[in-house]
Amino acid sequence: MDKQIIISVIGNGNNAPEFATDLAYEVGKELAKRGVGVACGGLNGVMEAVCRGAKSEGGVTIGILPGNDPDEANDFVDFAIPTGMGHARNSIVVKSGRAVIAIAGAFGTLSEIGHALSDGNTVIGLHTWPLSDIKDGCMITADNPREAVDLALKAAKGVV
Amino acid sequence: MDKQIIISVIGNGNNAPEFATDLAYEVGKELAKRGVGVACGGLNGVMEAVCRGAKSEGGVTIGILPGNDPDEANDFVDFAIPTGMGHARNSIVVKSGRAVIAIAGAFGTLSEIGHALSDGNTVIGLHTWPLSDIKDGCMITADNPREAVDLALKAAKGVV
Amino acid sequence: MDKQIIISVIGNGNNAPEFATDLAYEVGKELAKRGVGVACGGLNGVMEAVCRGAKSEGGVTIGILPGNDPDEANDFVDFAIPTGMGHARNSIVVKSGRAVIAIAGAFGTLSEIGHALSDGNTVIGLHTWPLSDIKDGCMITADNPREAVDLALKAAKGVV
Amino acid sequence: MDKQIIISVIGNGNNAPEFATDLAYEVGKELAKRGVGVACGGLNGVMEAVCRGAKSEGGVTIGILPGNDPDEANDFVDFAIPTGMGHARNSIVVKSGRAVIAIAGAFGTLSEIGHALSDGNTVIGLHTWPLSDIKDGCMITADNPREAVDLALKAAKGVV
Repeated sequence: MDKQIIISVIGNGNNAPEFATDLAYEVGKELAKRGVGVACGGLNGVMEAVCRGAKSEGGVTIGILPGNDPDEANDFVDFAIPTGMGHARNSIVVKSGRAVIAIAGAFGTLSEIGHALSDGNTVIGLHTWPLSDIKDGCMITADNPREAVDLALKAAKGVV
Repeated sequence: MDKQIIISVIGNGNNAPEFATDLAYEVGKELAKRGVGVACGGLNGVMEAVCRGAKSEGGVTIGILPGNDPDEANDFVDFAIPTGMGHARNSIVVKSGRAVIAIAGAFGTLSEIGHALSDGNTVIGLHTWPLSDIKDGCMITADNPREAVDLALKAAKGVV
Repeated sequence: MDKQIIISVIGNGNNAPEFATDLAYEVGKELAKRGVGVACGGLNGVMEAVCRGAKSEGGVTIGILPGNDPDEANDFVDFAIPTGMGHARNSIVVKSGRAVIAIAGAFGTLSEIGHALSDGNTVIGLHTWPLSDIKDGCMITADNPREAVDLALKAAKGVV
Repeated sequence: MDKQIIISVIGNGNNAPEFATDLAYEVGKELAKRGVGVACGGLNGVMEAVCRGAKSEGGVTIGILPGNDPDEANDFVDFAIPTGMGHARNSIVVKSGRAVIAIAGAFGTLSEIGHALSDGNTVIGLHTWPLSDIKDGCMITADNPREAVDLALKAAKGVV
């Protein structure tokens, strides 16, 4: 049997700007249309929007939670994985995807980008931390959700 | 939308005795028939058998892996979650289920039972560490896979 | 320069019985007299008592905390390591010692014993979970604090 | 009894540039002169240099290791804490200090900076990721090791 392909989507939680949740919703829809599962941190903001988008197209969503209670996941998470590890769960969020799409984001997102790049995983950025300005080539910037998903699947650890 | 209900199944990995993988296969089948997802450590032995059983009935399986590579999951895992945390991932395995079914098992399983009971989660035992002999009431012993699943769903954090 | 030798001491936190904190205090004193550092979970009960004993003889104590705040460590911890990982830090507590002394203990202690034995680390038990009754030879039972420390140092991963 | 004050020092491991290890050595010396303990990732490069500097002035050093073996710590670590968690230990490294000094650094360091800022901890930068150019005020840039230590102690969670 084939494993499901998962892409991780990261970005702001509380107080996510509307442009970020709009992008996340479209990314979720696009991933679901391609039959790809979504992993995220399971909470609100970008995390909720990407799950909502994925479910609107019948996709599958996994929320890797900081706390102990599966019911703290947003309403669009199918499979809640409570880690009880707080922000240390960020490294698991990015390991769960064969590539990572980063949408805007605050410091937690920055930690996830660092973990992903340190693991050798590819990060596709949508209006996120401009690391490609600092060290060339470390991130790939996408112009829109469809391109982000195209690039993520192309990069997906050579699997898809 | 409703979250999927997940039950965690734990037990021996390498060198699992045949009676344990037979029990695990039946537990996986039974969980899938009830529409319940399986979370496990994602490797071989009991972990593989419970996933194989679940997939034989069209169930969904999640493997929470000690390493970094989703492809180290057994062939019957749908969603591989690589944690990169080694055995420290054991606490996540048991937090992921609304109850835990323990089948036989070695020391890693013992650590998972300890974590689950410490979290206040219910552990249903099938030929596993006889903790009910030490502190009464801390585990529930089942006689067979069907009873284990019945007890797990009854105990499932009051949700099912 | 030589690394400091550390022994991990585990046992009840809240509501630790007095016999357990008395044993822990003596274990801490004895470790400090031998120039050996103490690692523990950093909170109260057995954890506080072993640190208090160690400090009474000028020993060094490390508290590996479940939370984020170094000041949640008990008053006898020299070096507080906040993990923010909750009970998942239990596996780190036992990895930090070249052997483990378990004193009484509840389910959290059971998870630590499981992790230690799974890692191949030696556990010396003082009135703790009677695992030697279940699988022969997996734990060594000591009769008193001095013997526990003797056995721990003898077993200390072949180093001391 | 008072807890020891710890400052975390992060930066490149393998292939650390010489300017970075030179800075780290001086930071370690300066922390030890002030009686402050050093926490780091315990391996080589900046991690080894800061420990070497601290030991040259009789300081105390803690290495929070990615692996399982205390002996993988560099020779200037007094207390080795093996986590077995790989890069997920990065969040513990930065939680262990009441402030963080970042020296140069690659993606792992970036993940640590993200974790620290996300926790509300202060990061003092020496030739590291220029995040102050992206979001004003999130990091403090120091010109030299002495200033870095001054700023770290001033910021140290209001404690020192």
